[in-house]
Amino acid sequence: MATNPGHEDELGVNLSIEEARISLKEGCGHNQRIQKSSATLHGEISALEAAGRVSAALYRNSTMYTTLSPCGMCTGAILLYRIPRVVIGENVNFMGGEDLLKQNGVEVVVLDNQDCKDMMSKFIQERPEDWYEDIGEERV
Amino acid sequence: MATNPGHEDELGVNLSIEEARISLKEGCGHNQRIQKSSATLHGEISALEAAGRVSAALYRNSTMYTTLSPCGMCTGAILLYRIPRVVIGENVNFMGGEDLLKQNGVEVVVLDNQDCKDMMSKFIQERPEDWYEDIGEERV
Ligand SMILES: [Ca+2]
Ligand SMILES: [Ca+2]
Ligand SMILES: [Zn+2]
Ligand SMILES: [Zn+2]
Repeated sequence: MATNPGHEDELGVNLSIEEARISLKEGCGHNQRIQKSSATLHGEISALEAAGRVSAALYRNSTMYTTLSPCGMCTGAILLYRIPRVVIGENVNFMGGEDLLKQNGVEVVVLDNQDCKDMMSKFIQERPEDWYEDIGEERV
Repeated sequence: MATNPGHEDELGVNLSIEEARISLKEGCGHNQRIQKSSATLHGEISALEAAGRVSAALYRNSTMYTTLSPCGMCTGAILLYRIPRVVIGENVNFMGGEDLLKQNGVEVVVLDNQDCKDMMSKFIQERPEDWYEDIGEERV
């Protein structure tokens, strides 16, 4: 786990926290499941969609910032586009495909950020149905 | 490789071929990269989007039909939602995450369908830029 991430990473994750916060206020944890009735617009997929059609070279010089450890689908999207570096706010509330990323040579930086952890636990507690739907689970 | 797929699978793949054919006529191989300027709406992700928000139980009783072996992102989406079975038209023009699917207990049926192979080779030959962008590669 990175204990001293660079300034740029703090900035990237702060932007990602801000986006997640806005999304939470609109009724959704970290994606557009509710706003767009979407099963695939997680934060990371949304970010790729927002970026639009860009060159393979640009992806390979990018960093993906995400509040939460990426799920299997988002992990796969990072691998598809060979994004070389992923900065993750937290992986306590959910541990995604970090091992698969590392096995494929992706640099994974986990900030273990308290704001991210608080925001995600609050969301999971307040909206368990949305959360479990998001990760493909039945509510437990 | 399955040599004797069931009737239902032939039907599913025929529908998937039909969709890919329409998509090709509209200027795109098997997804909405061009129509929606999208970097993530591959055929499989499109199918999940079209299905909308459904229960985890429904995913776990579904089969994903796809003309072409699923890329890393689509493989990840199948794993996220624990879709237990994937029927693939062909994997000659592109070999995706089939090993990862099998390692995770997903049943993978490859039809080695000639229509799928012809359609994909034609697309790759006629629109190489779109194809390579789709799989996250620079044009070779
Ligand atoms: Ca959500
Ligand atoms: Ca395409
Ligand atoms: Zn995700
Ligand atoms: Zn794909």
